[in-house]
Amino acid sequence: MKIAILPGDGIGPEITAQAVKVLNALGESFELESAEVGGAGYAAHGHPLPQGTLALAKAADAVLLGAVGDFKYDSLERSLRPEQAILGLRKELGLFANLRPAILYPELAGASTLKPEVVSGLDILIIRELTGDVYFGKPRGVRECPDGPFAGQREGFDTMRYAEGEIRRIAHVAFQAARKRNRRLTSIDKANVLETFQFWRDIVTDVHKEYQDVELEHMYIDNAAMQLVRAPKKFDVLVTGNMFGDILSDEAAMLTGSIGMLPSASLDVNNKGLYEPSHGSAPDIAGKGIANPLATILSAAMMLRFTLGKAEQADRIDNAVKKVLAQGLRTPDIYEEGTTKVGTEQMGDAVVKALG
Amino acid sequence: MKIAILPGDGIGPEITAQAVKVLNALGESFELESAEVGGAGYAAHGHPLPQGTLALAKAADAVLLGAVGDFKYDSLERSLRPEQAILGLRKELGLFANLRPAILYPELAGASTLKPEVVSGLDILIIRELTGDVYFGKPRGVRECPDGPFAGQREGFDTMRYAEGEIRRIAHVAFQAARKRNRRLTSIDKANVLETFQFWRDIVTDVHKEYQDVELEHMYIDNAAMQLVRAPKKFDVLVTGNMFGDILSDEAAMLTGSIGMLPSASLDVNNKGLYEPSHGSAPDIAGKGIANPLATILSAAMMLRFTLGKAEQADRIDNAVKKVLAQGLRTPDIYEEGTTKVGTEQMGDAVVKALG
Ligand SMILES: CC(C)[C@H](C(=O)O)[C@@H](O)C(=O)O
Ligand SMILES: CC(C)[C@H](C(=O)O)[C@@H](O)C(=O)O
Repeated sequence: MKIAILPGDGIGPEITAQAVKVLNALGESFELESAEVGGAGYAAHGHPLPQGTLALAKAADAVLLGAVGDFKYDSLERSLRPEQAILGLRKELGLFANLRPAILYPELAGASTLKPEVVSGLDILIIRELTGDVYFGKPRGVRECPDGPFAGQREGFDTMRYAEGEIRRIAHVAFQAARKRNRRLTSIDKANVLETFQFWRDIVTDVHKEYQDVELEHMYIDNAAMQLVRAPKKFDVLVTGNMFGDILSDEAAMLTGSIGMLPSASLDVNNKGLYEPSHGSAPDIAGKGIANPLATILSAAMMLRFTLGKAEQADRIDNAVKKVLAQGLRTPDIYEEGTTKVGTEQMGDAVVKALG
Repeated sequence: MKIAILPGDGIGPEITAQAVKVLNALGESFELESAEVGGAGYAAHGHPLPQGTLALAKAADAVLLGAVGDFKYDSLERSLRPEQAILGLRKELGLFANLRPAILYPELAGASTLKPEVVSGLDILIIRELTGDVYFGKPRGVRECPDGPFAGQREGFDTMRYAEGEIRRIAHVAFQAARKRNRRLTSIDKANVLETFQFWRDIVTDVHKEYQDVELEHMYIDNAAMQLVRAPKKFDVLVTGNMFGDILSDEAAMLTGSIGMLPSASLDVNNKGLYEPSHGSAPDIAGKGIANPLATILSAAMMLRFTLGKAEQADRIDNAVKKVLAQGLRTPDIYEEGTTKVGTEQMGDAVVKALG
């Protein structure tokens, strides 16, 4: 089995190195091959998603990505900026289903800005559609405003859209995920204002007929943004579009106070996937050896579970992470008095040791 | 001066009645005239925004609205649902600037789900553009998907758009508001993905040249949704588009834990405005006499300040509200042990008394 390793920018290389160490320690015969992506791709090959990197990602059975983005590349034109690599990989690999768990490890409850009783035991799963919506819709650009009070001025514009089949397939992923959990699904939309999301609501309601054992609730995005702060534990699985999912999954991650712990998966129709930590490239701490590698290590575990069919190995990693937390080891982002502060490498080594 | 009173649905009538009581107690000669809106408009005249109501709102110097929406009207077709009245009033009256303060009253710090140190003293102002973006952009609807892997299927679609002049005028409102506060403005966009919001960022940056005494920061919407949870007090004024503003202003309101306390203003180019509480119509507690009228009373104060040029009277109301909180009076939504639980009417009466 071939795994593409795309370290990327900022802390990306340091944290993927730890995940690679863990993968190599499992005793499986994975073939790991690395390539540049994001700013590193631009620096090496003049493009954030170089041809060779894309070819590798397509040929591999799964992709493990660190993070992309660095201040250095902020002044490039948009089509060359690091995040275009992420958008390009999603589109080119057809990665339409983004799974982002927001889990609060009991040992880290203090890290949250929310009161312990509101978040302790939090375990929700956000499923975000990843290849549609206003992210990729056409036409888009800057044009002359065609009518209304601003006619004749320049205007920026984009197209929001969801086709029936796109909504159906993400709805199926969501209902099936809910079945494996507590059988409650909340679909987030803005059906009261947007045609796209009235259509979304209609289709999700229709797909629900095939999953009558799952409880379905519809909720407006503004209300969802509130309920996540008010009573996040009331949710089980949430499903939503690309734009709303971008916002809600980050908000939910931050509720835990330990975004350095949260993995993510982006899957295609065959469960082939790209796996990456939910956090960013943190260029301000890059190279200092203090970044938290656990989200990337847990992303590797998700990869073993969802794409590579190695659930036992995934469990080994998940348990090893729990063990190092129980041992009191903490990178600076999750450090509290009374625990032991360690660096990126030490944390990676500790997980390897804890694999048993 | 003529004020249109639009009580609306759910708790709307109860809470506006208290605000009317307060307005009448000021000793000014306001002419108050009521009309039905939302579900009540539909029930009385077959439309959520009846002609007579719109005419009254247009003719009045300012509009005070309760809230709209009720389960009863959920099955109506979209164009007849209560919230269409809100969208219609914004569009017809040209109310492009929505001002939503998120303030945590010291007495109510316990009501927040966030830790006291994270939110105590919170005082931020969210400015949301209210007549553009994907809310009103055309074309929109359900059509046959023209191309791509889903060609030929049905798809829901909308148009996101902002014209230069629309961005300029809301940016001016925001910079001027920041000048009256701590001179820090955060503009929220998604310039890394959307043409509309790259354009937004460019124009806001240009308007900034006229306000060099205000510090301007640009932030992506996903990051903003996180930072509001992580460190909300770092913000001063935030400005954003209609869709992102809908989400962020509700998230920010919920941080305070006392959304029953938060007023809002929606202004046109002449500072004529519609004022309403930030919370909804809460049909589940309608008619029980337990709704919190303070957000509506504080909305009336905003109306006196921003539209009617009566800053002193606005101060009187703001101070009266502080006084009743200091007296320990609480409606059930903000009740804590050791305080005195009161109903909607009693709270209104207490504010009138506290006017002095
Ligand atoms: C980098 C950016 C294009 C991306 C997105 O908006 O999807 C990121 O925020 C994410 O959530 O993965
Ligand atoms: C009722 C709805 C159309 C409205 C909006 O989305 O603008 C509401 O959520 C608001 O924020 O005032």
